[in-house]
Amino acid sequence: MASTYTPTSESEKAVLAPEVRAPSRSFALADVILRFLLFASGLVAVVVMITSKQTELVPIPMPPFVRIPRSANFNHSPAFIYFVAALSVAGIYGLITTLISFFSLLKVARGSKLVFHFVIFDVLLLGIVAAATGSAGAVAYLGLKGNSHVQWRKICHVYGDFCKHIGSSVAVSLFGSIVLVLLILLSVYALSKRIPK
Amino acid sequence: MASTYTPTSESEKAVLAPEVRAPSRSFALADVILRFLLFASGLVAVVVMITSKQTELVPIPMPPFVRIPRSANFNHSPAFIYFVAALSVAGIYGLITTLISFFSLLKVARGSKLVFHFVIFDVLLLGIVAAATGSAGAVAYLGLKGNSHVQWRKICHVYGDFCKHIGSSVAVSLFGSIVLVLLILLSVYALSKRIPK
Repeated sequence: MASTYTPTSESEKAVLAPEVRAPSRSFALADVILRFLLFASGLVAVVVMITSKQTELVPIPMPPFVRIPRSANFNHSPAFIYFVAALSVAGIYGLITTLISFFSLLKVARGSKLVFHFVIFDVLLLGIVAAATGSAGAVAYLGLKGNSHVQWRKICHVYGDFCKHIGSSVAVSLFGSIVLVLLILLSVYALSKRIPK
Repeated sequence: MASTYTPTSESEKAVLAPEVRAPSRSFALADVILRFLLFASGLVAVVVMITSKQTELVPIPMPPFVRIPRSANFNHSPAFIYFVAALSVAGIYGLITTLISFFSLLKVARGSKLVFHFVIFDVLLLGIVAAATGSAGAVAYLGLKGNSHVQWRKICHVYGDFCKHIGSSVAVSLFGSIVLVLLILLSVYALSKRIPK
């Protein structure tokens, strides 16, 4: 493609020199892959979280002392509801930007405007996903260990499968946060590469 | 200063044109102010959190039915301990980078390398501070509302001052997260301004 395009001015020659344009293409490819990973982690985290429902026979502490079926579900905690909302947004955003990033890969060079617009949403989403990971993780930790100071009893010895789902979902969401950090750093690095020395 | 410096090539002239260099200085000033706000919010959040200790006379539910003094403190919850650690790091980082950013303001132009290095740590810190805000917020919400599904009782009607401290600290930390988002967007915008059109 470089042979069909003739740079017109000194500054354009400097910007489009091979050593500057070459990494741009591999950055775009890494961008597509990372955005697909973001979509995948959002989807997996949400699916694992909403399939976490578990019903167990729990003894009641008053007469007639029978065991009644009680279920644990993600929608019993506002932190988990926020988690599902945040990771759904991350997954949908991941899907849309994977497609946009993939189609811009087919073009010769990506506009720095597109990169800048992506970074704005990436940063906002990092804040949202990291906060969701933190809040779901804090409630999950309380479920696992309890808190003796305020007599919040642990529940994971009763609802083991439920806790496994929650824990896996939080781990996948942590992975999604790391992918978002890498996406932002990649975009910033790609931008800084375009600045003439 | 511009009159003492003579651009040698076409591309350097393009980079150092007044319309490109003028915003760079106001960006650097905004950078110093935002980094100072980050330092201030980290300091306030940590101080408010560690001064939250409250002791109340709580009735015990077994004979001899006396009221015993029980205290609520931030270090009773791992989420709050992580919060203090994360916001301390944010505050110290804010202080150090305020000074670096201020001294680089005295120079003619900031290197894009410094901006790029700041962005790396800003992004990592955003993830850490947002996760801390989320986890402390989730535990604080449980303290305020409780969770009837797992019989975790609310405690804020007993430890009112403690909960006010926690709530204020989480709010300040949310402000710190927003400052970090603005810092990253400012850096990215400053970088994208240096790219020749």
